[in-house]
Amino acid sequence: MTDSIFPQLHPPDRVLLGPGPSNIHPRVQMAMLSPMVGHLDPYFVGVMEDTVKLLRKLFRTDNTLTFPISGTGSAGMEAGFSNFLEPGDVAVIGVNGLFGQRMADNALRCGARVVEVAADWGCIIDPADIEAALKSEKKVKMVAVVQAETSTGALQPLKDISKLAKQYDALFLADTVTSLGGAEVAVDDWGIDISYSGTQKCISCPPGLSPFTANRKALDILAKRNTKVPSWYLDLSLLSSYWGSDRFYHHTAPISMVYALYEALRLIDEEGLEARISRHERHGNALKAGLEAMGLALHAQEGHRLSMLTTVRIPEGIDDAALRKTLLNGFNIEIGGGLGPLKGKVWRIGMMGHSSTAENVLLVLAALEKTLTEQGYKTEPGAGVQAAVASLKK
Amino acid sequence: MTDSIFPQLHPPDRVLLGPGPSNIHPRVQMAMLSPMVGHLDPYFVGVMEDTVKLLRKLFRTDNTLTFPISGTGSAGMEAGFSNFLEPGDVAVIGVNGLFGQRMADNALRCGARVVEVAADWGCIIDPADIEAALKSEKKVKMVAVVQAETSTGALQPLKDISKLAKQYDALFLADTVTSLGGAEVAVDDWGIDISYSGTQKCISCPPGLSPFTANRKALDILAKRNTKVPSWYLDLSLLSSYWGSDRFYHHTAPISMVYALYEALRLIDEEGLEARISRHERHGNALKAGLEAMGLALHAQEGHRLSMLTTVRIPEGIDDAALRKTLLNGFNIEIGGGLGPLKGKVWRIGMMGHSSTAENVLLVLAALEKTLTEQGYKTEPGAGVQAAVASLKK
Repeated sequence: MTDSIFPQLHPPDRVLLGPGPSNIHPRVQMAMLSPMVGHLDPYFVGVMEDTVKLLRKLFRTDNTLTFPISGTGSAGMEAGFSNFLEPGDVAVIGVNGLFGQRMADNALRCGARVVEVAADWGCIIDPADIEAALKSEKKVKMVAVVQAETSTGALQPLKDISKLAKQYDALFLADTVTSLGGAEVAVDDWGIDISYSGTQKCISCPPGLSPFTANRKALDILAKRNTKVPSWYLDLSLLSSYWGSDRFYHHTAPISMVYALYEALRLIDEEGLEARISRHERHGNALKAGLEAMGLALHAQEGHRLSMLTTVRIPEGIDDAALRKTLLNGFNIEIGGGLGPLKGKVWRIGMMGHSSTAENVLLVLAALEKTLTEQGYKTEPGAGVQAAVASLKK
Repeated sequence: MTDSIFPQLHPPDRVLLGPGPSNIHPRVQMAMLSPMVGHLDPYFVGVMEDTVKLLRKLFRTDNTLTFPISGTGSAGMEAGFSNFLEPGDVAVIGVNGLFGQRMADNALRCGARVVEVAADWGCIIDPADIEAALKSEKKVKMVAVVQAETSTGALQPLKDISKLAKQYDALFLADTVTSLGGAEVAVDDWGIDISYSGTQKCISCPPGLSPFTANRKALDILAKRNTKVPSWYLDLSLLSSYWGSDRFYHHTAPISMVYALYEALRLIDEEGLEARISRHERHGNALKAGLEAMGLALHAQEGHRLSMLTTVRIPEGIDDAALRKTLLNGFNIEIGGGLGPLKGKVWRIGMMGHSSTAENVLLVLAALEKTLTEQGYKTEPGAGVQAAVASLKK
């Protein structure tokens, strides 16, 4: 036994105000210290059952098939497409940001033909455009949109598009990676057939699992496939035998991650979903009020802005990378940069889950004021923080 | 805030002597408590780089493409097939257990034609049979075998099959899920083109990641594909941009799991790979000596038995499920049952990673003696433990 030349872990204690991961509640971290057990241990089976019950509450669904996929949100996305689309199928996909693009890429890899319904990055998809796409095709298998576009800060209303999908007998898939646990997601009431999320956003659990749900209608379509699901790992018919009552061995579940998710879901259960959604709204509003009071422009379409992720335009003459580096090194604050066409144009400030606190709103506004001012930006001292405080008092 | 009706986690403190997960070293558990950081944080990028270096040491490879896939070993398997096989390709696959079958299933889902080279469950694949399969086909794209068949306890020699694959210009894939970190795996010296492993076996990290490596030859074939890799999540060309020097955002890495893997790899580095392999052999031998001294029959082919997982035949008249239940509830010991054709016929006793200790050898032998005797099995009292002690002293 000799000491490794590789250093001990000593990560900085960041305030995570980017597009995810968010900060983790100590109870969630402690959950990962729980003794490891086998993936078919009767104790673990009980944890799986309770995790499923808690996920159903969060998704507001009675769907039997509800469980965490053993991969990140992107694995959930792939499961959502590869199980239900076959070569030759037509998918109508809303593309108004990076994650819409990724959905289209996934659908193409299934051999589907993709009809993209586009909107500017920051705007929502117009249901009328979805309807036009549905009308133009003989038979559409799936309509898919992202509820919370993490790349743009836009909140997509789902009810109208869901109705349209039903009217044209197509499956309706909603990406709830960034919304679940921070905004209303009503799978059954809104007629969402398939949805997947991530753990590291408003659920405030480490990344690594993707809460997933699909209803009977979707599973009937899965059962009638002509071809095998291309992915063995993400084949829902196999996965549901493991997570369902059969407990048929498929793969070894990430035990520690499931412990963490279970504890994160208990925390949500204790806070109450409505209270949690209000908290995200309150802090999202305060942040926006503060940013605007500093003379900054919000990027996403007014009336359709996310509470948990705010996109703000980078003022003329400000060095994006330098500012974010100063926030990280000087204040231990992580915020996100822009992606794709928004690279260098916006910052993405998250207030997700355990990171969504009044203190963090004030902290990031104060830190932004200081760093912007150092780069020559003019703003009334304290205006951002004062506006946020006023908003919080409402 | 009200208390959740869902109970706090309180898993039993199991001695994990099944086919995985194995017990976790406290330092690996503590690593998961390290503060969460962003997946593009400069600090995390450093951890990624060191993790890659440590994985290269473990795989004994210089392959640039070496990193943990964000899923369990089964996701690694899928990545190993879906990136390199296209519709119409021919794959020669050794099938002498459940994981060989799973490889064949994966290859079929890629649209490949599979030539199965079979052996009895517990025996190794005969290189002559691989050669016959290679001769019978015009062009074989890949030859694949499992080094450590977790379902049977057999250790497959790899060098001869690797040579054959080269001779017929096919890629050589070796599944090292259960062997890596506990048996010799020499990717470069043995000419393995593609390999994947799991974290919850001899690496003794929680399940959730799959160490993966592929060489230049494999990547050249990936680059020349006619079709897109069906999986976006497991597309190695995208993944290597994230884990490589570009650090191009692909998906959010499971930060806490990477922390755990990093610490588990540091522990291996400190112990030394050779010492660790010897430890697995010493305890595997002692377990086998003890089982045989109790009059039990080892299942896997003599001369080709795994050190980290021993299959032992269930004696006539013994109730498999009842005995394993007694071990679990009476002794907190998990051992594995048989799978497929070996269901009810064998037990699978793991001595993997942190679980591979002399104490655990003696414990499981003593517990087995007691539970077997309670079911009417005749064996000389203490014979198993004595034989194991004698073996350990060698």
